[in-house]
Amino acid sequence: MSSSLGKFITLEGTEGVGKTTNLEFIKEKLIEAGVKLTVSREPGGTPLAEELREMLLHKRQESVDSTAELLMVFAARAQHLNQVIKPALARGEWVLCDRFTDATYAYQGAGRGLSVATIESLEQLVQKELRPDLTILLDIDVETGLARAGQRAALDRFESEEVEFFHRVRNGYQARVQQAPERYRVINAGQDLVGVQRDIDMVLAELIG
Amino acid sequence: MSSSLGKFITLEGTEGVGKTTNLEFIKEKLIEAGVKLTVSREPGGTPLAEELREMLLHKRQESVDSTAELLMVFAARAQHLNQVIKPALARGEWVLCDRFTDATYAYQGAGRGLSVATIESLEQLVQKELRPDLTILLDIDVETGLARAGQRAALDRFESEEVEFFHRVRNGYQARVQQAPERYRVINAGQDLVGVQRDIDMVLAELIG
Repeated sequence: MSSSLGKFITLEGTEGVGKTTNLEFIKEKLIEAGVKLTVSREPGGTPLAEELREMLLHKRQESVDSTAELLMVFAARAQHLNQVIKPALARGEWVLCDRFTDATYAYQGAGRGLSVATIESLEQLVQKELRPDLTILLDIDVETGLARAGQRAALDRFESEEVEFFHRVRNGYQARVQQAPERYRVINAGQDLVGVQRDIDMVLAELIG
Repeated sequence: MSSSLGKFITLEGTEGVGKTTNLEFIKEKLIEAGVKLTVSREPGGTPLAEELREMLLHKRQESVDSTAELLMVFAARAQHLNQVIKPALARGEWVLCDRFTDATYAYQGAGRGLSVATIESLEQLVQKELRPDLTILLDIDVETGLARAGQRAALDRFESEEVEFFHRVRNGYQARVQQAPERYRVINAGQDLVGVQRDIDMVLAELIG
């Protein structure tokens, strides 16, 4: 990424990790620091991509082919990149995105068993050289996360998966960190919120400089 | 394709070529001949894939990224293949499909300018070795076709393209025929319907044997 452009920050993590609360915290901290910020999410971020998100999360009678799911995720990403993320970065704004391609490696790759090579080829097609500058991974043990997520009203198509699925997803995230540790900051999301946000603050201080 | 499976027949052509009428004609002829037949269409053919079709055809304010469009087409195809086409062929049925991957090469490739190599890599990912056994291409000069299509009530997102787009699409179909002529039967759809259906009859006679 050229440093003349805005920074592209992504937030990742499995179910119940506190992503929503902490996204809001990061957003407020960056805005306080005077960063011009676009906040978005994946899948989603444009009307078309949000329609695809709805289709992906919606529980349905029809069993969804894993490759179809993967292609819908990348279709939404192509649209989001072209309509929102790339224009914002080109204007010099920072982009903070709730989930991005690491989630695809974790959920569709490690979770569903699709090959890393397939995901890499779609990442290359859709993103060319664009990668996040920094990814904050909120990490929690699977059972604690699911217990927290289970307190919500209704589970979506992903949240309804078996526990073993989320173990694979968490391992998928950890494999991503191991292959390019300089791009990730892993936060222990099992501590209390004060501890989590103190750790996030340290990451942001490093970013804002 | 293994000859122990059913045959996979696709029907292709640009706007106003008479695809709907002639699909019905082919279907009736095959059923008369005792063929166990599944008739379907692309994009579409399952509830999820039909939702994607609606999204693709629907005119919207948001400009749709070509790569996003391509990935949605292949997402629908992956779902359709796994839920409908492959199970039908495995049961020994024939499948007659209104449009398939040739349309992707013609519309998203030649029409939108996406590379053949990109489409080939997605075709390989989604279809593996599966290709139609025979493709009937209804061919008509672009202006005549558009004049016919224009008599319909409302034009969709593709039908609303400029004339030059449909010239590229027609050329895209012809390029497909040239690179594997044995798989295609090109029918002159500019003649009257009696002539078109006489030519289709000859193709079906060859198929039914």
